[in-house]
Amino acid sequence: MAEPVVPPAVRWDGRRLHVLDQTLLPAREAVLTLEGAEDTAAAIRRLAVRGAPLIGVVAAYGLAMEVAREPGLGALERGAERLRSARPTAVNLGWAVDRVTAAARAAGPAQLAGAARAEAEAIERENRDAGAALAQRGADFLRGARRVLTHCNTGELAAAGRGSALGVVAAMAERDPGVRVLVCETRPLLQGARLTTWELAAAGIGHELIVDAAAAGLMRRGEVDAVLVGFDRAAANGDTANKVGTYGHALAARAAQIPFVFAGPTSSIDPTLASGEAIELEERDADEVRHAAGALLTVPGTPCRNPAFDVTPAELVTAVVTERGVAQPVNRQTMAALLA
Amino acid sequence: MAEPVVPPAVRWDGRRLHVLDQTLLPAREAVLTLEGAEDTAAAIRRLAVRGAPLIGVVAAYGLAMEVAREPGLGALERGAERLRSARPTAVNLGWAVDRVTAAARAAGPAQLAGAARAEAEAIERENRDAGAALAQRGADFLRGARRVLTHCNTGELAAAGRGSALGVVAAMAERDPGVRVLVCETRPLLQGARLTTWELAAAGIGHELIVDAAAAGLMRRGEVDAVLVGFDRAAANGDTANKVGTYGHALAARAAQIPFVFAGPTSSIDPTLASGEAIELEERDADEVRHAAGALLTVPGTPCRNPAFDVTPAELVTAVVTERGVAQPVNRQTMAALLA
Repeated sequence: MAEPVVPPAVRWDGRRLHVLDQTLLPAREAVLTLEGAEDTAAAIRRLAVRGAPLIGVVAAYGLAMEVAREPGLGALERGAERLRSARPTAVNLGWAVDRVTAAARAAGPAQLAGAARAEAEAIERENRDAGAALAQRGADFLRGARRVLTHCNTGELAAAGRGSALGVVAAMAERDPGVRVLVCETRPLLQGARLTTWELAAAGIGHELIVDAAAAGLMRRGEVDAVLVGFDRAAANGDTANKVGTYGHALAARAAQIPFVFAGPTSSIDPTLASGEAIELEERDADEVRHAAGALLTVPGTPCRNPAFDVTPAELVTAVVTERGVAQPVNRQTMAALLA
Repeated sequence: MAEPVVPPAVRWDGRRLHVLDQTLLPAREAVLTLEGAEDTAAAIRRLAVRGAPLIGVVAAYGLAMEVAREPGLGALERGAERLRSARPTAVNLGWAVDRVTAAARAAGPAQLAGAARAEAEAIERENRDAGAALAQRGADFLRGARRVLTHCNTGELAAAGRGSALGVVAAMAERDPGVRVLVCETRPLLQGARLTTWELAAAGIGHELIVDAAAAGLMRRGEVDAVLVGFDRAAANGDTANKVGTYGHALAARAAQIPFVFAGPTSSIDPTLASGEAIELEERDADEVRHAAGALLTVPGTPCRNPAFDVTPAELVTAVVTERGVAQPVNRQTMAALLA
């Protein structure tokens, strides 16, 4: 059977960056071509490009393209500022921008643009390598789990390469074709319904879509072996920010006595934050809540709260799986060991 | 300021029943006229009429209208069967149909239709009285709570009269105009987004809409004083079935150490069920998950699970508030006392 082919989330042609506009999926596969910091920041802000690892890779190229057009410290600083402010929660964004900035500064004026480009390419390569290693480590860790529940989208659309949690799922399915995935739709922006189902269908992995609110009851009824999600920013103590709804799944997994696992690259760990209290949580526009797929769901103008993330405390987390190793139990010591 | 007027969810003209088609709200206020068991069962099945207390009242009239058209035991039995099978989870449906059937049988052939009608009218009257008493008891119980989180729709659209949880909220707001409500949208059918916001706006009660998955994180951040929901069926031990998502809110309330309260009429308690294990949970059509407000959200044909309810175990419930009194703590003894 011919499987649909998933176009790459990101492709660097040596000069410009080509990204899938993920806001249009699954209805339409449109590729955006990015040329500098401004349009790259805009693509990140409006979620055309999303997923913590992918945001880092794309921001790095955005800055490299900016200084290729205008090689100089002024453009470097302005571009870095523009990109950093695009979204507040994913640590990879600031981390990648800082890396490119440092590499460019260290190279000096004449090599500035070339060094920025080389650093962005290194970040992409590392992200691909991390995804591949992470997928195998995760599949090792979750050996025997066949019914996995996940939230949001954390596969090849969320990273360069395999991604985080969904990359683990793909590796699990390679080892055991009986693996099945319960996909939470992930309101308000429906990354699960739009993107994860699309990736899993393309990969031929069995799945069922559920509303987010159905997850806890299905866990309680014994229909889930493990919960596996990516993460946007982990603090030094293992408290972890991820897409809104994640914390509720962690509570339900604990009550059902099943593993709750975060999977992501070590670049998503922020050792400068002591705990989850210090993580800034993005609050997005009310219109995202009032609508779904363009349709108005409520009384026009209804006031809304729209936190895009929540924090799961370390004590609810069975393990944090990264490309370098697994933190289990999750605490300040085991998290530090991942970065050592 | 002129407030919008909420048309009644149900109006009996002595011969036919007029109900709001709740599937069209808030965009359109259309009234359906029902004339017998068949069309009443269809309206209940497709959720034109919903909310456990309201389903009971409407089913009672549906059966009364059926035997008014064809007075006899055959029509009574066929009509009762048709109505009972419309939806499996809400106990009020079978309870109301049983009451009308028993009253009609007891009255004998000549008075059958009149007795059925009188019993339906009694059920409606009792539901209105119960809602009024429940609202005051609930407001007494939750004195001091100003930021209430609720799920689904449990007010004047879910009952004859004031309703259950949202009736309590209305009574709280009468006593303290500073009361504010966080409304969970309640996917898949968005009763919170469509109906609860509409009712609260009409009543001038402050509210904000959130996606269901945002509830747990907001509780954790200290932004909610109490969770207050209705219920579809409570077992003898206090395990309680309600709209899918309720159980997750109960876990989050426990973690945040805030009260989690069920409010509903004693007619929603089913003492014949020992525990929540015995409650049949309706699984509805996959198209409800694939769509919202008519818009396709996912890859066409994506397989879905769609449990419409979940069960919250008694140990997570702070109190069950009814028109007759409050069960606290919630256990077999305190639940039995409500029905004594």
